[in-house]
Amino acid sequence: MKIQVAVAGASGYAGGELLRLLSGHPGVSIKTVAGASSAARTLGEVQPHLHSLADMVVQDTSAETLQGHDVVFLALPHGASASLAETLGPEVLVIDAGADFRLESASDWGQYYGGPHAGAWPYGLPELPRTGGERQRDRLRGARRVAVPGCYPTSAVLALAPGFAAGLLEPRDVVVVSASGASGAGRALKPHLLASEVMGSMSPYGVGGGHRHTPEIEQGLSWAAGEPVQVSFTPTLAPMPRGILTTATARLREGVTAGEVRAAWEEAYAGETFVRLLPEGAWPATSSVVGSNHVLMQLAVDERAGRVVVTAVVDNLTKGTAGAAVQAMNLALGLDETSGLPETGLAP
Amino acid sequence: MKIQVAVAGASGYAGGELLRLLSGHPGVSIKTVAGASSAARTLGEVQPHLHSLADMVVQDTSAETLQGHDVVFLALPHGASASLAETLGPEVLVIDAGADFRLESASDWGQYYGGPHAGAWPYGLPELPRTGGERQRDRLRGARRVAVPGCYPTSAVLALAPGFAAGLLEPRDVVVVSASGASGAGRALKPHLLASEVMGSMSPYGVGGGHRHTPEIEQGLSWAAGEPVQVSFTPTLAPMPRGILTTATARLREGVTAGEVRAAWEEAYAGETFVRLLPEGAWPATSSVVGSNHVLMQLAVDERAGRVVVTAVVDNLTKGTAGAAVQAMNLALGLDETSGLPETGLAP
Amino acid sequence: MKIQVAVAGASGYAGGELLRLLSGHPGVSIKTVAGASSAARTLGEVQPHLHSLADMVVQDTSAETLQGHDVVFLALPHGASASLAETLGPEVLVIDAGADFRLESASDWGQYYGGPHAGAWPYGLPELPRTGGERQRDRLRGARRVAVPGCYPTSAVLALAPGFAAGLLEPRDVVVVSASGASGAGRALKPHLLASEVMGSMSPYGVGGGHRHTPEIEQGLSWAAGEPVQVSFTPTLAPMPRGILTTATARLREGVTAGEVRAAWEEAYAGETFVRLLPEGAWPATSSVVGSNHVLMQLAVDERAGRVVVTAVVDNLTKGTAGAAVQAMNLALGLDETSGLPETGLAP
Amino acid sequence: MKIQVAVAGASGYAGGELLRLLSGHPGVSIKTVAGASSAARTLGEVQPHLHSLADMVVQDTSAETLQGHDVVFLALPHGASASLAETLGPEVLVIDAGADFRLESASDWGQYYGGPHAGAWPYGLPELPRTGGERQRDRLRGARRVAVPGCYPTSAVLALAPGFAAGLLEPRDVVVVSASGASGAGRALKPHLLASEVMGSMSPYGVGGGHRHTPEIEQGLSWAAGEPVQVSFTPTLAPMPRGILTTATARLREGVTAGEVRAAWEEAYAGETFVRLLPEGAWPATSSVVGSNHVLMQLAVDERAGRVVVTAVVDNLTKGTAGAAVQAMNLALGLDETSGLPETGLAP
Repeated sequence: MKIQVAVAGASGYAGGELLRLLSGHPGVSIKTVAGASSAARTLGEVQPHLHSLADMVVQDTSAETLQGHDVVFLALPHGASASLAETLGPEVLVIDAGADFRLESASDWGQYYGGPHAGAWPYGLPELPRTGGERQRDRLRGARRVAVPGCYPTSAVLALAPGFAAGLLEPRDVVVVSASGASGAGRALKPHLLASEVMGSMSPYGVGGGHRHTPEIEQGLSWAAGEPVQVSFTPTLAPMPRGILTTATARLREGVTAGEVRAAWEEAYAGETFVRLLPEGAWPATSSVVGSNHVLMQLAVDERAGRVVVTAVVDNLTKGTAGAAVQAMNLALGLDETSGLPETGLAP
Repeated sequence: MKIQVAVAGASGYAGGELLRLLSGHPGVSIKTVAGASSAARTLGEVQPHLHSLADMVVQDTSAETLQGHDVVFLALPHGASASLAETLGPEVLVIDAGADFRLESASDWGQYYGGPHAGAWPYGLPELPRTGGERQRDRLRGARRVAVPGCYPTSAVLALAPGFAAGLLEPRDVVVVSASGASGAGRALKPHLLASEVMGSMSPYGVGGGHRHTPEIEQGLSWAAGEPVQVSFTPTLAPMPRGILTTATARLREGVTAGEVRAAWEEAYAGETFVRLLPEGAWPATSSVVGSNHVLMQLAVDERAGRVVVTAVVDNLTKGTAGAAVQAMNLALGLDETSGLPETGLAP
Repeated sequence: MKIQVAVAGASGYAGGELLRLLSGHPGVSIKTVAGASSAARTLGEVQPHLHSLADMVVQDTSAETLQGHDVVFLALPHGASASLAETLGPEVLVIDAGADFRLESASDWGQYYGGPHAGAWPYGLPELPRTGGERQRDRLRGARRVAVPGCYPTSAVLALAPGFAAGLLEPRDVVVVSASGASGAGRALKPHLLASEVMGSMSPYGVGGGHRHTPEIEQGLSWAAGEPVQVSFTPTLAPMPRGILTTATARLREGVTAGEVRAAWEEAYAGETFVRLLPEGAWPATSSVVGSNHVLMQLAVDERAGRVVVTAVVDNLTKGTAGAAVQAMNLALGLDETSGLPETGLAP
Repeated sequence: MKIQVAVAGASGYAGGELLRLLSGHPGVSIKTVAGASSAARTLGEVQPHLHSLADMVVQDTSAETLQGHDVVFLALPHGASASLAETLGPEVLVIDAGADFRLESASDWGQYYGGPHAGAWPYGLPELPRTGGERQRDRLRGARRVAVPGCYPTSAVLALAPGFAAGLLEPRDVVVVSASGASGAGRALKPHLLASEVMGSMSPYGVGGGHRHTPEIEQGLSWAAGEPVQVSFTPTLAPMPRGILTTATARLREGVTAGEVRAAWEEAYAGETFVRLLPEGAWPATSSVVGSNHVLMQLAVDERAGRVVVTAVVDNLTKGTAGAAVQAMNLALGLDETSGLPETGLAP
């Protein structure tokens, strides 16, 4: 019998992507879709690209609606997941695509999000390596609660983790600059997200360490390094619907060679389906990962500046959110880790 | 055993989309990919979004390379398919995504394309209805040669065919205006296709009946109507990678009511998976069909002008080319018509 | 002494474009800018591209604020202009960029806008020709009230008027399909105007004669023809910030030749600075008019269909709104008609 | 009498922008436009947005064509300017928008461009401050040879120079990541510049210190600092026609406060028309500078990481190339420095 799933937040962009992927997952049956302002409308109205689900009716998001499923996906604004999760039994797999359970540090939570810290769940970034050989994957098998990483952290942490895990990088003066498509900012009506404002324009936001993904990036890289890592992170908004391009750079430890650097990254991702270091000479474009669960990256050692520069691309809605959620479900339930996840992007 | 297929023209946009769909088709094995200038390179280099096929090497396009397959897809510039097709046995299913075998009229061919007319193959638009009840689908079952429709004709013909098949429309003063994403113009280097020229701009081309798809639209509508239909067709280039929005309008015959019009369209597509008349009040956007094999349309009767206006959206590379090719393969080989074809689009 | 002007609606897109043009007009001093929700903010905050005006503070829109100017520009939602205009003396030049005073027919107003009909002012489309030789320009010299045309009608009416003025076209089965950039829909927050929805997508709206610009196009073409003209008009939304591409087509009267057609258009616009028929073989792109006050067009006679097809491009915010307003001011006040109006577009 | 100017490279994007600005300059007469492949065509064909210059005919680029002008602008591929400049008398003002005369270090030239080093001309970045109080402006007054800065260096150098000039920043671990619109890559036909490749996608290029603008950024910042500065620079390609968003970050020297940082930037640009530090809380968007000669920037001190982060926007074709060239002409000839330069951008 198929796995019965519910998706809360079905009318947002993350919810829509979850439904796109789940509708193609061979082992899954989408039993319930829930929303807030979209309740009582059909998916055909709110997600008109989900042709095969067009007649499903959106339910209210409530504890009642979400009962009776094997898996519940929460794609809600931060702060909304904890109370819903409490109503779901420990045997139910709850996968939170929001921020509530990502940060282990209550003080970071308080500083960046405010309000009470709900705690931390296993972190849904299976490929993340660590000094000593552990991977996050090990913590996801059999889990019944999973926090899906933020889209920026997915790209930034995977970009630099191999160097930290291998002890090649200095833990200070790490700089990350990312450009994201507009869907990363969600579907709420905000003046700076109007098409006329975004098309043909780039702009920064949350500069100077203020973006909420900063402590999450530091947490991921610190876990990889086994010591605290400090990051300067600047996110920018790019005139495209989807995709993140992250440029991440760190100082090499004294004496580290370009060969050692390349070898560390190659080794870290050699066996991974969804994370690939490109052959030398090729550079990643976000168009190569749109709609897919892949992270592509390339690196260069800047001998002059003594730094490694890694550029990584990811679809913020797929591997950056919904694809990671499905991948985590596969791992937690013991399915093939790649089941239901697109092997190709959509280009051009 | 899986169906062994070859794709010629693997480095173009149509070829890339064919490979994307075929790589997800449960009954297909991609045995050979062939190209011209890309020969000897890997697909990872020329189609970097096809992650699971990244290591395949592009072969030269030649009669030898294309031997020994159950199905050969040709995605080549017009004029190149006929000679290759002749080298393939009658038991091989040959599906031509180019123009060579679309037009039945040798004089239209001569006027719009020039050179000798190669002939006409069964036309790969299964949903096309006709006065009397026939559909093109009937001609595709068991076929071993199929001509895939042009992307504009797919949208324009499906948009108006129900009205012509039902005898509701005048065969003159039909006007079609379409906007297409840039991938419709192919991957060749042309100054007007540079990103800086296209982004933020719209422009027409082939105005005044000169576009090669004009006689093909007329052929399709005439087939539906059972009498000659004359069309004024204007294609325009829109600043997006994929998608066609077609506005098609025709004069209603004397006395035809709005109710009759809606009923004709509803009936024509009631049983179709890939062609849908939207509920009243909803309008189609190309973003709802990107990456999917669907055509969405809506119509309105303009009482003032005595005309019906139909707007239809299609992904020029999927239902407009590669999806139609796979659908035709499914029909020709007796598979489920929808096999391997995405049920959802990719949005936003 | 310079002309003292006020601009109401300064925080919208039309208001911003008015201020951009007026800040470069050698004879004008911008004395007052007024807004609604933006009142008390600086222009630097709400129109950050107007560097030289960054410190101006937006005033409340009220009769008091607008007193004491030589010229008052109103860029307000329809329905708001009439009551404000009444408070301004007859010696003040009032230029309404909204719809309130465009339509001469009270019944059209009632059907398309609803509410009481405020009346009709001289129509700010100076280049519009008429059978017999008159132009709208004649009605604008010395005027103290001017209605600025809608952006779609500017393109559609100028596209076909020469043929109607010369008696070459049938007044029925006229079809107009336009694609507009998102700024044409204004700066209000609407779900379908979010960047993620618009980028990479085209969609229709107001199909079947329902768009408010339909009667205005018919009014303009009927004025040119000297007899009632009926139009099927379909507007679509394109993924770009600015610009309109209009495809307009009409049936030729019996016996009209291609040469007569071309001659009529050439003659109509031979002496015009801002409206140009391109040399044969060249096609207009919206990128050629962005930021300029120009309309570029090209035509083709489709012998097969017996129709003329005209494609015209215009910047919806410049010639389509704010540029036309400044041009009308120049004419009304006896200045050089081109004063303060950009002679070039901004490309790429 | 007006200044007689010639523009070589008139059919490229930089040439087109030069002509746009010069056609609006009150003291300038455009006497000659020269090109290579576009010779003998009209500007109307190759730069269709320059309506007032549409009938000018492009001449061959040669020493003869360029004789007899007061000012000659060269917008040519690097390597082409030196030999042409030699044929022009010392009384002629020659402004090179290319790279040939930007770098003072022959070894940097050799490493990044190859071939013989032509030398260095006064650097056309008037606002660039230096420790001790000097500005580049001082070197441009009365000059007869000027090298226009690269577009990336303009943004990056102006972004960080105030901190270096004031001695607040460490000269190592400076990181610059920039996103540029596609026009920055020029008008030559290259596969990765096709619209279908660029739209909806971001990609890096020249990673790891390899981009030719790296030594130029270091040169500018070193001049400001009075000591060698080392920079890690990563340029990326964004899906928009124009504009650069640069994120530049450097480590603060021990004990430097946020107040000192802000004061240094404010003071550096207090009297500048074209370079503005935005009020606190406002962030720059490239759409605010498109078509204008302005650089807008904002900064934040990241206390956690001990770094300053500056984001700056510039139009790569205006202040980044053609506007800087006109500004340099104004300074060299003793005109008002802002003459002919747009005071507003074009938005949305």
